[in-house]
Amino acid sequence: MAKVLTSKDDNYAQWYNDLVLKSGLAENSAVRGCMVIKPYGYAIWENMRNELDRMFKETGHENAYFPLFIPKSFFSREAAHVEGFAKECAVVTHYRLKNDEEGGGIVVDPDAKLEEELIIRPTSETIIWNTYKNWIQSYRDLPILVNQWANVVRWEMRTRLFLRTAEFLWQEGHTAHATREEAVEETMQMVRVYAEFAEQFLAIPVITGYKTESEKFAGAVDTMTIEALMQDGKALQAGTSHFLGQNFARAFDVKFTNREGKLDHVWATSWGMTTRMIGALVMAHSDNNGLVLPPKVAPIQVVIVPIYKGADELPAIKVAANSIKSELVSRGISVKFDDRDTQKPGWKFAEYELKGVPVRLALGPRDIEKGTVELARRDTLEKKVLPQEDIAGYISGLLDEIQDAIYQKALKFREQHTFEVNSWDELVDVLDNKGGYALAHWDGTPESEDRIRETKATIRCIPLEGKKEPGKCIVSGKPSGQRVLIAKAY
Amino acid sequence: MAKVLTSKDDNYAQWYNDLVLKSGLAENSAVRGCMVIKPYGYAIWENMRNELDRMFKETGHENAYFPLFIPKSFFSREAAHVEGFAKECAVVTHYRLKNDEEGGGIVVDPDAKLEEELIIRPTSETIIWNTYKNWIQSYRDLPILVNQWANVVRWEMRTRLFLRTAEFLWQEGHTAHATREEAVEETMQMVRVYAEFAEQFLAIPVITGYKTESEKFAGAVDTMTIEALMQDGKALQAGTSHFLGQNFARAFDVKFTNREGKLDHVWATSWGMTTRMIGALVMAHSDNNGLVLPPKVAPIQVVIVPIYKGADELPAIKVAANSIKSELVSRGISVKFDDRDTQKPGWKFAEYELKGVPVRLALGPRDIEKGTVELARRDTLEKKVLPQEDIAGYISGLLDEIQDAIYQKALKFREQHTFEVNSWDELVDVLDNKGGYALAHWDGTPESEDRIRETKATIRCIPLEGKKEPGKCIVSGKPSGQRVLIAKAY
Repeated sequence: MAKVLTSKDDNYAQWYNDLVLKSGLAENSAVRGCMVIKPYGYAIWENMRNELDRMFKETGHENAYFPLFIPKSFFSREAAHVEGFAKECAVVTHYRLKNDEEGGGIVVDPDAKLEEELIIRPTSETIIWNTYKNWIQSYRDLPILVNQWANVVRWEMRTRLFLRTAEFLWQEGHTAHATREEAVEETMQMVRVYAEFAEQFLAIPVITGYKTESEKFAGAVDTMTIEALMQDGKALQAGTSHFLGQNFARAFDVKFTNREGKLDHVWATSWGMTTRMIGALVMAHSDNNGLVLPPKVAPIQVVIVPIYKGADELPAIKVAANSIKSELVSRGISVKFDDRDTQKPGWKFAEYELKGVPVRLALGPRDIEKGTVELARRDTLEKKVLPQEDIAGYISGLLDEIQDAIYQKALKFREQHTFEVNSWDELVDVLDNKGGYALAHWDGTPESEDRIRETKATIRCIPLEGKKEPGKCIVSGKPSGQRVLIAKAY
Repeated sequence: MAKVLTSKDDNYAQWYNDLVLKSGLAENSAVRGCMVIKPYGYAIWENMRNELDRMFKETGHENAYFPLFIPKSFFSREAAHVEGFAKECAVVTHYRLKNDEEGGGIVVDPDAKLEEELIIRPTSETIIWNTYKNWIQSYRDLPILVNQWANVVRWEMRTRLFLRTAEFLWQEGHTAHATREEAVEETMQMVRVYAEFAEQFLAIPVITGYKTESEKFAGAVDTMTIEALMQDGKALQAGTSHFLGQNFARAFDVKFTNREGKLDHVWATSWGMTTRMIGALVMAHSDNNGLVLPPKVAPIQVVIVPIYKGADELPAIKVAANSIKSELVSRGISVKFDDRDTQKPGWKFAEYELKGVPVRLALGPRDIEKGTVELARRDTLEKKVLPQEDIAGYISGLLDEIQDAIYQKALKFREQHTFEVNSWDELVDVLDNKGGYALAHWDGTPESEDRIRETKATIRCIPLEGKKEPGKCIVSGKPSGQRVLIAKAY
């Protein structure tokens, strides 16, 4: 069977693009920079969304929905925020089209110009804090723990499916608190939720830490991040949680009466995870045969393929397949029995490998005779023949084993690609020759950070659980108390 | 306790607006015509979405996601569609802002003008059919059964929370078929799904039928609708399903090779239901005390309020309340135990009446002594004292009973407000004095329909299950084979 994917060793970027297209996750649309998320890709997003939503609700959050449009003037209110977000964005200037009397077709009606332009939200802090102003008078109105599932638009010049698109889907949490401590604790709680989600659900090990001053969110006091390592040795920022201090409350004049009866500005956080995470999921685990999906996020966990020559062999196979299917379904496992007669078994095998279905079962006439079934694991590509009896129980355990194996493999890869470097040359060697994470001492200055940026790598984060040890900055030689995480990144 | 709502008999429109605001469903935003859906309103939408999504998947549909933006030229392709949709819409003309060197603040960068303007989707037929073109070559690629959950924008001059807003949330199904028959069957299937959803889940009885030529969707061959009756005697179009024929396939050149090996255009349907349905839910059932929510859609099905004077009485109440709560939860019933000490029981009673929680339990010291609990039904406002023992079992049955009672009440209201009229005067009498539905003979001509429209009422639909009977058009006196449904409408 001809390989349908470019090898990831030959051209990682092409492999990724091929894979996203050919496994049916997404494709480019007629609108520059916007993608179409196809049903299989969207099913993955639904699974991610359902799990994250469950975790948000378990931690006391509710969902709400705020407008797509933000008045232009709102951006100017928070000085750092406008610098970061108001530039590359989609601007609505008119609200009507009309028939073109001369050229035919339709044109923008010049009489329908908006008094104030509207920006398609690139993120919703401004419109939300403008709303919270009316919701908050007293400490009794706090905390507000709200999340929104929405589409956002950031005009990007160079786009890549899932990784960087003009429009993307995400969730954005926006919370309001009576005290700094509570807001800091919320920021930390949500980055932990993201880390747990990435590791337990997507089987992607992450490093949690703080962004440097220059890398943090526009308008934040602190940005926490989870960083994931892709198989090409590049990092990917997989989720961020921001402590916004009182910046947005000040910008939108949101004050409350505290327990002591005094007026104070409200404390804020925001946190988000996006469809970009599907790109991370693809790049963290997949291989030259296609996607490798951890069972928890896989839209189809088990596929059953019948193998038969004559149509007379099919009925007995169907009986056995449907019996296995119903046992699996009763255990909450998602199963597809693909008995289409328009495709051959070999084509189906390749197709489900490409789509990353964790477990494949094949059932032929000899299996029916012997009461056996052939089972193939997607992650290891191992095959074995097993008795049909209690196959559902076996698979139930196997799915957990696969979930863990995929995580352990990614963790091992990360360990093999994480290097403590103690000099500039060692840093360059890691970035240019080895790929992966460099852990290096840094003096905390923007000057040294800029120098590091010249390698095209960035400080991904100051790890939360990095060991405290004295050292010297690899740029300046000045003292440093902890290593930071440096890598090239998506 | 002072009434917080305007009486619906005094001012129905004001009652509705008060109710939506004060029950915490939604509010107006800083952006003209766009609403903020607050957590309680969004929780209702989540329940509706989850149920509809389940029904869509059960009927073989998958979700996907298409771009927010539609190139302006796409609208011109389908002649009727452009007339209906391209007029009042949000137009993106620029993709960048810049600092205003003179006045301060930020302005639209004139250098960042788009070559072709982008329209924020008012509906997605055009962008989706432009995409389907690449997905469909042969009958083997059909049917495509795709749904999208999304936000859409239609620039409205006069807006009302949920009922008519510039941005709203909805689902839009877009299916592609090899034959006319299959597409017609899909159109019918989906309007039946909507009717079942409205009646079984939202307890709103509906009349299913066809729209007249002038009322159908711009670009459709046939539009099917479900019409619901509000308590002020006005109708509300609650969901539509369109048979699009080959119109969009022709406009976007989507052809396939059929089973006979011949090229043909693909057959299409589309169907949608929106956040407007929350407005219908409010207006169909609620009263002067607040929302009345059918249990199936209620975010909180049961609330437990402790009644106590001294703090020493609370612990025993908490034990009993938590025991009842866990029994209810284990039956899949959503429960809130509101033991806040910042609000008095009377305030809480009024609050949960306003929010339409179907069942309220009150537990005081005497209940603890006697092993009883006071139960109040929101729909009938009846109260009774019951033994705590097996209260969960009782409530489980009661919720079904309430669901049915709310439906029956709405059905009875509709029956009392449906009138067969046989003359123009009788029609005017129903519309001006009685309110509700008039069933009248109509000759099928646009002229007679226009005349009916002068009453400010419209033909809501030609009922699917209306009896076939010969009659005379109330406008022209010409023959008619079936009565049509006429009403003033939202």
